[in-house]
Amino acid sequence: MSVTAAQGFIAAGVKAGLKASGNHDVALVVNQGPIFAAAGVFTSNRFKAAPVLWSQQVLLDQELRAVVLNSGGANACTGPDGFADTHHTAEYVAAVLSSLGSEIGAGEIAVCSTGLIGERLPMDKIRFGIDAAARELAQDGGSNAALAIMTTDSVPKKSEVAGAGYVIGGMAKGAGMLAPALATMLVVITTDAVIDAETAEQALRSATALSFDRIDSDGCMSTNDTVLLLASGASGVQPNLQEFTSSLTQVCMDLAQQLIHDAEGASKDIKITVEKAASTADALEVARAISRSNLLKCAIHGEDPNWGRVLAAAGTTQAVFDPNQVDVSINGIWICRNGGLGEDRSLVSLVGRQVDITVLLRAGESQATVWTNDLTAEYVHENSAYST
Amino acid sequence: MSVTAAQGFIAAGVKAGLKASGNHDVALVVNQGPIFAAAGVFTSNRFKAAPVLWSQQVLLDQELRAVVLNSGGANACTGPDGFADTHHTAEYVAAVLSSLGSEIGAGEIAVCSTGLIGERLPMDKIRFGIDAAARELAQDGGSNAALAIMTTDSVPKKSEVAGAGYVIGGMAKGAGMLAPALATMLVVITTDAVIDAETAEQALRSATALSFDRIDSDGCMSTNDTVLLLASGASGVQPNLQEFTSSLTQVCMDLAQQLIHDAEGASKDIKITVEKAASTADALEVARAISRSNLLKCAIHGEDPNWGRVLAAAGTTQAVFDPNQVDVSINGIWICRNGGLGEDRSLVSLVGRQVDITVLLRAGESQATVWTNDLTAEYVHENSAYST
Repeated sequence: MSVTAAQGFIAAGVKAGLKASGNHDVALVVNQGPIFAAAGVFTSNRFKAAPVLWSQQVLLDQELRAVVLNSGGANACTGPDGFADTHHTAEYVAAVLSSLGSEIGAGEIAVCSTGLIGERLPMDKIRFGIDAAARELAQDGGSNAALAIMTTDSVPKKSEVAGAGYVIGGMAKGAGMLAPALATMLVVITTDAVIDAETAEQALRSATALSFDRIDSDGCMSTNDTVLLLASGASGVQPNLQEFTSSLTQVCMDLAQQLIHDAEGASKDIKITVEKAASTADALEVARAISRSNLLKCAIHGEDPNWGRVLAAAGTTQAVFDPNQVDVSINGIWICRNGGLGEDRSLVSLVGRQVDITVLLRAGESQATVWTNDLTAEYVHENSAYST
Repeated sequence: MSVTAAQGFIAAGVKAGLKASGNHDVALVVNQGPIFAAAGVFTSNRFKAAPVLWSQQVLLDQELRAVVLNSGGANACTGPDGFADTHHTAEYVAAVLSSLGSEIGAGEIAVCSTGLIGERLPMDKIRFGIDAAARELAQDGGSNAALAIMTTDSVPKKSEVAGAGYVIGGMAKGAGMLAPALATMLVVITTDAVIDAETAEQALRSATALSFDRIDSDGCMSTNDTVLLLASGASGVQPNLQEFTSSLTQVCMDLAQQLIHDAEGASKDIKITVEKAASTADALEVARAISRSNLLKCAIHGEDPNWGRVLAAAGTTQAVFDPNQVDVSINGIWICRNGGLGEDRSLVSLVGRQVDITVLLRAGESQATVWTNDLTAEYVHENSAYST
């Protein structure tokens, strides 16, 4: 499972004392090859955390030997000193791994951090964690690695898909979106397929665009969001781009759904599909606007099929549509027809966790889906009490 | 006070049975002249309620004799039938007022509605309310009119400013923003100054841009937002545009502050000022992004001076700034310097209701202020239980 489902990877997750809870907080994922192709996508926030700046830089070489991750501190907004800490972390991992086998440089190590913004990491604990993780690296270490990256997550997120002769597996933390994001989202995906870095990059961009980019828990964008893909080539199988992208998208979709299902305080999973749009961009713009309506998200929490709030959100967009031609269904009931009253609202049942909202724009043939969750008092409580 | 502070206006607010609570729900404001210049600004939502479409149309003639307002029903997303209801409402008011004096046409009557979206208005109660309001029209009727437009407002909002020989007064409902808006915002402002419609329009656009346009309670835009200005000329005083705009802005700012102070569930008023921006547009973009961060609003509710969430929101914008040059102060403490840790967070006191956040971009000399409020469990509760 997780990042060790694919051949050629070992991993570990350990308790280094970064988290007040004493839980697992440092993870290490090591690619044993024979190839080391890698790609990444990162937050578009302009306040990028030190580990994001570092990992973007090392990925210019399109290869990664390992990823080190920590919870309990984001190392964001920490200035040059924070960047030096990240650099030192990568150097320390490179030295420890080099002592175990072949020579590895800091420039082959990605770093991911999540937790409080604006505080320096306790580097002694980071080093302690790296030493401990290196000792525990194993082919069944993926589950502990997934534990070590959790923050407000209530469960670890893991996924695995078998392709034609190869495997893709991954782990994720942080209920949110690549950009925006609720809390920091960190995702590491590994595969034993034989792919080059260009294929990895192309497949990852395509897969994230349809998965992590389409979940939006609370409209907030993190400073640390990172999605990494590492290929070991250990299966010896070279898939074609289309087939690999399809399998990778499955893993990303699975992890994305797990993230939204475990979003802070959420009691409803809301799937918003916009159909018959003039373009995919239009469909996405409308779906995103609806997914960010606090009023609608409160209504869904209260099991109120408030289609007026769906229209009010759609009406803030520039998408092509005639307001008098728009239909809205909630859980299969077309409660709004032609921008006005449709079927009886009493027919809509919102008792389950899953809520499906479909909007017909009648402006073309494109469609898009965005997933979000309801807004609850628990979300407010969690984010009033917890400093991210 | 309210819409009858200025000479030449009479008003009334009555109980017509539209609200389940039995409270005041129909208001009438009548301009007795000698002039009838008027201007309006409206929601930019593309799903405009019938009364918005109507009032925009009648204002093309730049004159209004009266405004009729109701709570207990928004008459939004009600199609051609809903528009016919609004048209009938204006005709009914015109007939009733004509029977009291000079001939008035429906095209001189603005209509405003607020309440549930997607339901037809009970026209018998509307007519009953108009009849009752017409009987009670009085020079001290402004306070009852302000009562009759309340929905989730806990107090009526009224304001009055004395210019050089003339008066401007007004009433408002609905804690929110012209666009976006929490709940529908309705504002009627009256003056006895002698101004033509062009002056009214110019002054109103300028005043709303600095007041109602700069409050943002929850980022949601209503289908019904309306701000109207009516001038009677009864003072005989003709102010210059600059002086009148200044007085009008005072009234709008006062009403806007009352709206944000009474926002649904709010326990903190948050003033966000962005300084040293390259342009006013940049300052506004950053201030608005910060004002819409649910995470920050939760943190402020929890009295947590979470400057990382301020930066994370600012980082989503395209405004000109260097992330390593940005400072943030919360209640006077420069808790973030140069995009990193500044003064000790323990110095920040957030116990009071008023919270001041200042962001220095160091990119120019422009500035802008936006007002918002915290996100609370009460907001969630109110908007889960109450269908708008």
